[in-house]
Amino acid sequence: MNQTMLAAMWEGGENPVLTRRPIPQICQPGDAIVRVTCSAICTSDLHILHGAVPRAVPGIVLGHEFAGRVEAVGPGVEKLRPGDRVAANCESFCGSCWFCERGYVNNCEQGGWMLGCRIDGCQAEYVRVPFADQCLYPLPANVGEEDALFVGDILVSGYWGALQCDIRSADTVAVIGGGPVGLCAAQCARLLGAGKVVLVEPRQERRALALQERLADEVIDPYTQDAPAFMRSLTQGRGADSVIEAAGAADTFQLAWQLARPNAVVSVVAMYEQDQVLPLPRMYGKNLIFKTGGVDANCCPQLVDLIAHKKLRTDFLITHRAPLEKILDGYKIFSSHTDGCLKWVITNSCQTDKNVP
Amino acid sequence: MNQTMLAAMWEGGENPVLTRRPIPQICQPGDAIVRVTCSAICTSDLHILHGAVPRAVPGIVLGHEFAGRVEAVGPGVEKLRPGDRVAANCESFCGSCWFCERGYVNNCEQGGWMLGCRIDGCQAEYVRVPFADQCLYPLPANVGEEDALFVGDILVSGYWGALQCDIRSADTVAVIGGGPVGLCAAQCARLLGAGKVVLVEPRQERRALALQERLADEVIDPYTQDAPAFMRSLTQGRGADSVIEAAGAADTFQLAWQLARPNAVVSVVAMYEQDQVLPLPRMYGKNLIFKTGGVDANCCPQLVDLIAHKKLRTDFLITHRAPLEKILDGYKIFSSHTDGCLKWVITNSCQTDKNVP
Amino acid sequence: MNQTMLAAMWEGGENPVLTRRPIPQICQPGDAIVRVTCSAICTSDLHILHGAVPRAVPGIVLGHEFAGRVEAVGPGVEKLRPGDRVAANCESFCGSCWFCERGYVNNCEQGGWMLGCRIDGCQAEYVRVPFADQCLYPLPANVGEEDALFVGDILVSGYWGALQCDIRSADTVAVIGGGPVGLCAAQCARLLGAGKVVLVEPRQERRALALQERLADEVIDPYTQDAPAFMRSLTQGRGADSVIEAAGAADTFQLAWQLARPNAVVSVVAMYEQDQVLPLPRMYGKNLIFKTGGVDANCCPQLVDLIAHKKLRTDFLITHRAPLEKILDGYKIFSSHTDGCLKWVITNSCQTDKNVP
Amino acid sequence: MNQTMLAAMWEGGENPVLTRRPIPQICQPGDAIVRVTCSAICTSDLHILHGAVPRAVPGIVLGHEFAGRVEAVGPGVEKLRPGDRVAANCESFCGSCWFCERGYVNNCEQGGWMLGCRIDGCQAEYVRVPFADQCLYPLPANVGEEDALFVGDILVSGYWGALQCDIRSADTVAVIGGGPVGLCAAQCARLLGAGKVVLVEPRQERRALALQERLADEVIDPYTQDAPAFMRSLTQGRGADSVIEAAGAADTFQLAWQLARPNAVVSVVAMYEQDQVLPLPRMYGKNLIFKTGGVDANCCPQLVDLIAHKKLRTDFLITHRAPLEKILDGYKIFSSHTDGCLKWVITNSCQTDKNVP
Repeated sequence: MNQTMLAAMWEGGENPVLTRRPIPQICQPGDAIVRVTCSAICTSDLHILHGAVPRAVPGIVLGHEFAGRVEAVGPGVEKLRPGDRVAANCESFCGSCWFCERGYVNNCEQGGWMLGCRIDGCQAEYVRVPFADQCLYPLPANVGEEDALFVGDILVSGYWGALQCDIRSADTVAVIGGGPVGLCAAQCARLLGAGKVVLVEPRQERRALALQERLADEVIDPYTQDAPAFMRSLTQGRGADSVIEAAGAADTFQLAWQLARPNAVVSVVAMYEQDQVLPLPRMYGKNLIFKTGGVDANCCPQLVDLIAHKKLRTDFLITHRAPLEKILDGYKIFSSHTDGCLKWVITNSCQTDKNVP
Repeated sequence: MNQTMLAAMWEGGENPVLTRRPIPQICQPGDAIVRVTCSAICTSDLHILHGAVPRAVPGIVLGHEFAGRVEAVGPGVEKLRPGDRVAANCESFCGSCWFCERGYVNNCEQGGWMLGCRIDGCQAEYVRVPFADQCLYPLPANVGEEDALFVGDILVSGYWGALQCDIRSADTVAVIGGGPVGLCAAQCARLLGAGKVVLVEPRQERRALALQERLADEVIDPYTQDAPAFMRSLTQGRGADSVIEAAGAADTFQLAWQLARPNAVVSVVAMYEQDQVLPLPRMYGKNLIFKTGGVDANCCPQLVDLIAHKKLRTDFLITHRAPLEKILDGYKIFSSHTDGCLKWVITNSCQTDKNVP
Repeated sequence: MNQTMLAAMWEGGENPVLTRRPIPQICQPGDAIVRVTCSAICTSDLHILHGAVPRAVPGIVLGHEFAGRVEAVGPGVEKLRPGDRVAANCESFCGSCWFCERGYVNNCEQGGWMLGCRIDGCQAEYVRVPFADQCLYPLPANVGEEDALFVGDILVSGYWGALQCDIRSADTVAVIGGGPVGLCAAQCARLLGAGKVVLVEPRQERRALALQERLADEVIDPYTQDAPAFMRSLTQGRGADSVIEAAGAADTFQLAWQLARPNAVVSVVAMYEQDQVLPLPRMYGKNLIFKTGGVDANCCPQLVDLIAHKKLRTDFLITHRAPLEKILDGYKIFSSHTDGCLKWVITNSCQTDKNVP
Repeated sequence: MNQTMLAAMWEGGENPVLTRRPIPQICQPGDAIVRVTCSAICTSDLHILHGAVPRAVPGIVLGHEFAGRVEAVGPGVEKLRPGDRVAANCESFCGSCWFCERGYVNNCEQGGWMLGCRIDGCQAEYVRVPFADQCLYPLPANVGEEDALFVGDILVSGYWGALQCDIRSADTVAVIGGGPVGLCAAQCARLLGAGKVVLVEPRQERRALALQERLADEVIDPYTQDAPAFMRSLTQGRGADSVIEAAGAADTFQLAWQLARPNAVVSVVAMYEQDQVLPLPRMYGKNLIFKTGGVDANCCPQLVDLIAHKKLRTDFLITHRAPLEKILDGYKIFSSHTDGCLKWVITNSCQTDKNVP
């Protein structure tokens, strides 16, 4: 195993480099080595290239969104065996610290965003995964790797965004932003019992996709329509029962609380580059609950089940597919949003067996 | 009943006026007329005098914090009879609209802050109370009117602030601000199972009171001590399990999220006169939940029970007592915080029978 | 309005009588008079005929499951106007007593099962409904009366049975009994996020219906199959995440806890005629939660919304339809379960406008 | 370490034997060896002697309730070091199986009641503890071993019994049975916010203890008083808001649901030797929730904190103390309840340092 593999590396500059690296090996008892059968480029990868992630370490292999097959496991791994097809968590967590024991895995004392940031990631032929028992999820026979590719990042973020809304049957839920996370959040809000899901998104093609794939019941363009008035018209004047803010701009943050009815949850899943203004005097009487932060991704096994049961799917996110050799093109197209690109999937040389049996 | 009574009126200016007004009468089927046996001056009264409450109507009798005896009830009142001694809610709510049915009584479609703001209030000998079945609470024999004076405003605000923290046994709870609401919130946090309550308050005498009355386990002066470091030292480096912000300034808002551990609830019960800054990039990983707004005061009967069971008390808030004739002095002393004034209680001419039996 | 109407009356014997009665009038301020446009025969009606409901009053008009149009309202009714098309609750509750305020409407201090039991019911042309603001629900334009006929009894019972299971996404839920309530419970369990719903029902035609209408994912015959083993095979050996017992016999009660995995909820919605045995020593380690009793039907407005949003439907329950004149035939066929009868609907002479526009 | 130690052994008969055994050693990576500084005799030990625990293995050292000092840890132990003073869980659980991940540690796939049942227990000088990171809890300096002796069995059972009542402030809680678990449950119900705790217990000295130690607000003798009537008199006719059944007999099971108000939780923490009758027809309208089973003891660290904060204590349970050499006397006195024995504590030769610093 001291052979080399193809990998997309970040040397510290604005562009990734395609290079060869040693195939990774087990370092810790809890590690697994996974052969990557499909992976994706994520907006967070772009943040690293833009120098906006201070803890990112130059010289690492990029990438944290993937699925694959287990090649080897350390002696401390109990739940996985070589040959297992697995979905992967984009975050690493130990499962046993004070925070992990309470389900707050995003604040794991030993983990956090490691893959493709502080240690080598998955835009390569193989990847070493720490805390493998916690962060890799075996796939049932009727779930292909590509079906489960987004489980550990985009999908779980959308699910968590919807889950923390405490949706009650027949609630009207507003989702701001029709990017991959927003579309997943809309789909999950329906799954969790929303009566009506309204997607607020300025791009026409994303609104069309949301309707066509039945991810949302209603769509609205916030630039040409009065979104708060529209929301009130759907809810006997009250406003949305909950709001998922998945866009991350100053105007969308303000829109979020304006769309909400009194006593609503505003689930803030977007990542902001700027401080935001909380106009407490104006919203005083509204008694809003703001839930902020990054996904606590400890429900991934459930998401794999929901995919197996045909209750969730993410194929509509994949607009582009190409092998690892073409990944530098992928970064260009994904970052410029040209060609309607939602997600660029790296198919690798390994055959992805979708819906195997 | 076309006699007159003494009353403190707001004519639109910066000072109240002591005058005579007709004794109020039943207007709506759900009304009750209450003889006020004790009432108090509240910071919200000062807001009206400062012109900061646009919906306040010049010419009204001031005051919304009181207890008393029912004199008469309208034909729609089912739960009260003349002679009942009662605590009173500072807000009015119908109990049957969409919001009230869900417990969101602060957003009642017909109510809100009415007494002493939009209709005549309680700084008088008698007051008319709309929605009396919802907003007046009979007192058991061992609870005097003065014991229950703060149930419907100060105490319920502190209780609600603590309740929405979802306190688990042994949690460490930080309370910012040792005014009447903050002191009540500290007391209620203990009642709801907090292991340790830490009061953050710059005034020495209020910190001393909190310790002496066993409202808080620890106190801290935010100006001379490093409050976040102190909080971490109590919690193995994590921070407070929840934070109740009862001070209402820009620096205390920032302190609130800094005191909190990841995944904490920040219960914002203070009323802000300014917009606040929510530094989402810096707090991204903390996954905080901010609960904002004004008290949903539908748990007042429970508070009366807790007072009867000796689980809650508010006598430590009363620093001054005087009859209605002296209320103009009260406004001066209360507004200037001179003489260590926490709450000025108007005893009225009627005899308050404390702990009747 | 001193005219008469056709009505099915219980005189105290084993069979109902078709007769003429005075058209009811407003008695209490909260009453409404409803013109019945569709109603149904319910198993509880048979209980009365069998003498098994001690509080039933001979001489009353039978029936408690209906929808219709408001003809007149008392002076205390705020939410309804003549002409409103409405669904109806089978139970009556005041909305303001200690129990109602907490959502425990089944234990309303003034209400309970009144219609068709203690006061005249709905198997007639008109019915007087007490507490009309609480117990009648206006229908949106796209919901016909027949669409909403079962909202206040069969459907809400199934929904409540599923709701109290605290279903988490992807849970496997077992429903015992494929009668009307069981079929509704299965449908609602899916709505509330179950990954897999398994119906346990001995009659082949009911199992077929459940699959055909997509109410359940799997069906099983408890007489020819080993239901606990089948359930374990679906759940990696654990058992059902929750169980809804909607059959009401001694063997189905025992089956319920045997199907459940440890720490499951067993939602007992059936009505039992006999005491049951709780084998605590054998189930000690399982840590089961049994939720018992009759539906707290305060979520009917939500169900109307869910029907309007096409998330729930009940048309599959209707196997027979006939006007009020034929109701005595209906009682015969419904009670003998002949002709595959699930629900017999009385269409009345009034035109039911299904899905109006 | 191939020396021997004193130990109370079960050879299969009705009486324990005091003998010498090899000092235990680390077998699994997750093990710890603990020097026992105090332990206790528990009713479950008697069950073994009576032959009522089929899985108990003759030849084992008895005992599962203890505190002590860590002597050695296996290579997989992360949270403990030799020298740590620790409380101990009476059950063993892995912390990572399907059930443990959800907090259902009582159903751990690898654990359960092992110590003093299936492997050597703590009525000895040393004990080997599997899954030590999960099942041993370091004590802060102000908590002595004896202070924490009951954390992992009696106290956590009472706490869990109270916790699953979902107590709301000011609730009235009935506890049936004033044995060690019942007394702890009463104390914890107060801690969790009960307004009034009522202990139902036939022995006069236990009722007196409960009042004297302020564990209960009211006590009642079920043989000479009408307990349901008394409970209704305290609750305006409704009954207890929740009931903790800690007695375990047929009549106390029936009393439990009779004491409860409609919609109450009945928390069944007692262990029954017989099946019980659930009279569903009579309790139909009450909508009761029965929570059954054995404690999920994953909140022990919290209990240690509560003891450190002086919110809980268990010293009132200790009626007898003697060194290990006297344990056979202890079994006699404890099993016959002579001499008012509540708990017999084995002090061992090691010095217990209570409230060390």
